[in-house]
This record gives sequence, structure tokens and C-alpha cells, in this order.
Amino acid sequence: MPVANSTDSIFTQLADCGHKKVVYCSDPDTGLKAIIAIHNTVLGPALGGVRMWTYKTEGEALADVLRLSRSMTYKAAISGLNLGGGSAVIIGDSRKEKTEALMRKFGRFVKNLNGEFIAGEDVGTNPRDMEHIRMETAHVAGLPETIGGSGDPAPIAAMGVFMGIKASVKEVFGTDSLTGKRVIVQGIGHVGEHLVKLLRDENVKVYVSDINEDRTRQVSKKYGAEAVANHSIFDIDADIYSPCALGGTINTQTINKLKCGIIAGSANNQLEDEDMHGQLLLDKGIIFAPDYVINAGGVINCYSELMGFAKKRSLQLTENIYEATRNVLKLSKAENISTIVAANKIVEKRITDINKVKSGY
Amino acid sequence: MPVANSTDSIFTQLADCGHKKVVYCSDPDTGLKAIIAIHNTVLGPALGGVRMWTYKTEGEALADVLRLSRSMTYKAAISGLNLGGGSAVIIGDSRKEKTEALMRKFGRFVKNLNGEFIAGEDVGTNPRDMEHIRMETAHVAGLPETIGGSGDPAPIAAMGVFMGIKASVKEVFGTDSLTGKRVIVQGIGHVGEHLVKLLRDENVKVYVSDINEDRTRQVSKKYGAEAVANHSIFDIDADIYSPCALGGTINTQTINKLKCGIIAGSANNQLEDEDMHGQLLLDKGIIFAPDYVINAGGVINCYSELMGFAKKRSLQLTENIYEATRNVLKLSKAENISTIVAANKIVEKRITDINKVKSGY
Repeated sequence: MPVANSTDSIFTQLADCGHKKVVYCSDPDTGLKAIIAIHNTVLGPALGGVRMWTYKTEGEALADVLRLSRSMTYKAAISGLNLGGGSAVIIGDSRKEKTEALMRKFGRFVKNLNGEFIAGEDVGTNPRDMEHIRMETAHVAGLPETIGGSGDPAPIAAMGVFMGIKASVKEVFGTDSLTGKRVIVQGIGHVGEHLVKLLRDENVKVYVSDINEDRTRQVSKKYGAEAVANHSIFDIDADIYSPCALGGTINTQTINKLKCGIIAGSANNQLEDEDMHGQLLLDKGIIFAPDYVINAGGVINCYSELMGFAKKRSLQLTENIYEATRNVLKLSKAENISTIVAANKIVEKRITDINKVKSGY
Repeated sequence: MPVANSTDSIFTQLADCGHKKVVYCSDPDTGLKAIIAIHNTVLGPALGGVRMWTYKTEGEALADVLRLSRSMTYKAAISGLNLGGGSAVIIGDSRKEKTEALMRKFGRFVKNLNGEFIAGEDVGTNPRDMEHIRMETAHVAGLPETIGGSGDPAPIAAMGVFMGIKASVKEVFGTDSLTGKRVIVQGIGHVGEHLVKLLRDENVKVYVSDINEDRTRQVSKKYGAEAVANHSIFDIDADIYSPCALGGTINTQTINKLKCGIIAGSANNQLEDEDMHGQLLLDKGIIFAPDYVINAGGVINCYSELMGFAKKRSLQLTENIYEATRNVLKLSKAENISTIVAANKIVEKRITDINKVKSGY
């Protein structure tokens, strides 16, 4: 995936990364300033999160929405979903400036896109906000179960990461049994905690770490995991490093320290530099399960909601992440390319192929 | 109408002039780079022209589409139509870079807006282009009569200007008979020529001028009008000056030279500076029929096409320009404000009032 340069012209930025369009939405009455980006809709409508954030400049907001929307295309495509990639950002402080009116006005802009964009949760928005968007448009996912939504995506998201870990272990050890393996889970939010549970249920030795030390203690005690300090993560002798918090933790320095042969976690954009560090991991023989391949559970949950599928179907689709990861790792090995490059190739081929399927009368 | 400053941030430009949104549309396959602006949709879907032009910068293209879309809101509103204001610009050379594929891809972007924007002709596009857009979406107007469209808008546009002239003459002379009056028609394209015919049919003394001198001779001969050189227009002793070509011909210098007591023509944006020259005309007691009030015939023609009305209804709606102009001139006189300010007030009141009508369950 090419990287957008926020100083470029808007059309150059769109063309660079293959974006179809961006919509600037303005409503002074509610204070709404939002940008909706549609990256690609070959596979289906563009699903993506609505992020509310205090961007310092419009250029920063644009760069973020372009990056997020593009990654949604890849995430949905690799999972075999019939969804395109989109995203939205609302400029503002979600704790101080978010109101029902603002979210509903945003919902009106989503409504006007007539299904081309489907809104979901992201940083700074929550299920309540999705409810407010839902009051204005049906093109929203991630609603509470009590009003017919798919509810908390964390268990599904964790299951996807668990599948990605299994597929990676199969590549290295020839079997996907995790019993006796050692996994470092960095970041134990909702997804991280569910992952710890799944791992412990399969008798994995789990190390947990979180910037919130109370939380670390609490989760380690609850599931019988070992609490470790955040700064000592890369010193631990383990099999799998699973970053489940912030992105960008994998760089030249940490790769050189890392004692694990596998990286597989739920965090977005784990590689500080996709090209450079993807290649470095390949050179070092470290198996990297690409983040967007194995953290697609949340998107799958939304997809099921949109399609009216039951939880069972979400779980089945999430189990497919095992096969998707295996395909990526096999292609990486066969062509001696980084796993990120391999995943991107699979995505781009699928989009090209399905685009051809859809052509003609 | 406030003026957009192209160096501002996009959201600032949107908020400054009350725009709802802008959509950047990109398609490298066809070379399409377009911006669609939606100014206001309180009264109805945003109708506006599609201009194809070799803009030097994206900022210039954005400023133009914001200006055009805003003026469409005012034009539709003052005419009593249930249409909002929008516009689109395609960056490129219409003679070299326009293809069927490009126009149809543009049509797809219009389609995705689901009726919020309705495309029409403008500089650099023609009825054939509207046909190409029509192949992808029904949200287009200005189609040839042979495929069910309203056809050539020039006769209707000329009728609107004619009505504006009559209303202005009524204000000055107490009767709207034009017999014996002297009118300078500057610019004799399609609209100008139809206007000359209408005026001559009512025994008006008509002076015609065009940058194309062959055209000037031809039209003067055909209708019995007097050909005059373009540079001598402001020296002629006449009653009405009717600019029907380029905008911006009315400035401090030309106002000081002008011997006519009435300005009423079809050109867009006739005043070089709306505030300053609108006021100067008021101070000098020159009646200025605001351009967007009396040149709405083309929009009315499109509106009839969209509503499925016959030509008769278009003519009737166009005749309403007489009353609209009278109302503007009366308000200008009553409140001692320029006619542009008066027209804007009427528009803004209508939008505010109808917005209230539409609120509630």
C-alpha cells in the first residue's frame, strides 16, 4: 500500500493510493467538520470506522482518513468479504464536542451517500454514536445487540487474532497446537483480554503487559498469566509476540531485540515502516502475520450484522482467517516476499478478478 | 453572497459561504478529476452546471465550483423553483481531454450522490455530454428534445431577460411597454440573438455588439438592429444596457461612463465587485436587474425537464421573472439597499421560511 503525503494536492493524494473520492462535510449549526473517504468499492459498499479526533490541521485529518479507508479495503478483501473500503474522520474533541445533533447530522451525510459508505465505530466513537447515526440512516454497523446489532466485536476480533496465531504456529512448528507455546500479549483492552482467555484455554504460557499496571495485575490474576513490565517485553524469551495496543511497535530496534519467531497481534499498523520492516522481518526469518489479515474480526462482525447473519456465521467467517493467513505465509515463502507484500498481492488480485467478473451486461 | 478566498482551508471556505459539502472525484483510468459542490439543498436537489476548464490549480477549481454552486442556490430560489444549488467542475481541456468514458465516469459519481446533485450544461460541456452522463444516471438535465429533454434553453433564457427588462422599464417609466426604447445588447450568442428578436418584435431600437464582427453584421442585418463597436458601447445614449456575454463588465469606470438608466442582461456575475458596484449603481440611481434574477431561464428550462412539464410551463415560470424582478426593485427602493442585496434578502428569507416548513414530523 503506497503512503499518502499530506503536502500533496488532494487529487494527487487520491490518485497515489487509488482512492475514488473524498467528501468534505460541513455543518456550522452542529459544528460538524467531517471528511468521508471512499477508497474502493469494487467488492461492495465501503465499510469503515468513524474516528473523532483533535486533528491539528485539515491535511492531517485528510491523510488519516485516506490511510484508514485504504486499509479497510485491504482488510475486507483479504477476509473474502464483499465490502469495499472507506472511512470517516470528524475533527473535534470527542469528550467535549460530541453531541446527538452532531452525530445525527453526520448520519445525514452518510445517508446522502446512499449506501456507498457504511459507518462503524472507531477511536472517539462508540455504540451510542452508532445509534445516533442509525436514527438518520440505515447505513451503519456496530449497533448494540439490544437493537438488532452485532454487539461487542471484541470476542470475534480476538478469535481472528487467535486464528492468525495458530496459522503462524503451523508454519513454524508444523502443527497448529498452541499447547506449551509462550505468547506475549502487549495491551490488554477488550480484544487483548479475550485473546488471553482463548490462549489460556489452550494451555499457552501467556505474558501480559499494559500501560495500565492495575489492569495488568488484574488480568494476569484472572487468567493465570504472567504480568511483565512494558519496557521488558522484547527481552522475554517467547515464541509469539502479539501486539494488541498501539501501532508502530515494530521497528529496526525492536526487531533486533525480539526473541520471538512469530509476530501476530490485533494492533493496526504494527510496522513502523511497512516496506522496510516487512523486508527486515523476512530477512530475519521472523513470521509476521499481517495485522490487517488477522485483526479483521471486527469488520467481519459488522459484515454479519449488515447481512443479517447470526453470531455463528461471524465465527465461521472469522475462522477463515486461519486459511487467509496460511495463504499469505505460503505466498511469502514461495516468492520470497514480505508477508505484507504477499497479503497486498492477494488483495489486489482479488479486486482485479472480481472487477472483471462484474463487467459486462 | 460572501466571497470565497481560495487560500483558506476547505472547511473555512465551506463555512464562509454556507456550503454543505464538496466531493473530490478521482478516476485515473479516464483521467477524471472533478469537484462537485453542494451549496444548499433546503429547497430541493442541487441543480448545477458541469464546467470543464483548464484550471491552473486545484484551489482555483475549488473557488470556482464554490462560487458557481452558491449562485445556483440563489438563482433557483429567487425563481420560486424547488431546487437547491450545486455545481461541478472537471479539470481539463474540454477540446482535447473529453471522452465518452470520462463523462460517463463522471456520471457514475453523480449517480452515487443519489439525486442530491443534478448535472446540467456549462462552459466546456454540451448536450452530447449530458447524454453521456444520462447513460449512467437519471440525475441530469438539459438533454436534447429528441430523447425527451427540454432542448435548447436559449429561447427561454432570452425570454427571462426580456421579462427582467420589462420589469425594470416599469420601475423607471411607469409602464412596461418597450416600444420606442433603446437597448444595447452586448454579446449576441444564442441567448443574445433571441433577445434581439424579442426586442425588435416590440419595436425597440436595438444596438448590437459582439467581439465577432461578422456575427454583429449578420445579426444586425437579420433583425434590423444597429451594429456598434464593442469599445463604444458606453458612449451610446440608450435607455437599457443589456450585457449578454462576459461577466465583470460593470465597474467604477463603466458605471461613470454609462448613459443608460437601466442595466439588465443575461451575463453571469456582471458586477466586478458585488458590494461596491451594487452600491454605486444605487447611489447613481441606475436600476440594475440582478443577473441571477433575470437569467434564470436556463435553470427553469431544466426544472421543467426534471418535472416532466411541457414548454408552456417553462414559459409561464419564465414569465414569473417579471414579478420576481419587480419585487427585488421594490425592496431595493423601500429599504434603500442595492438590488443585489435586496435579491439576496428575498432568497435568504425564502430558504429560511421553507426550512421551517420542512421541519417537524
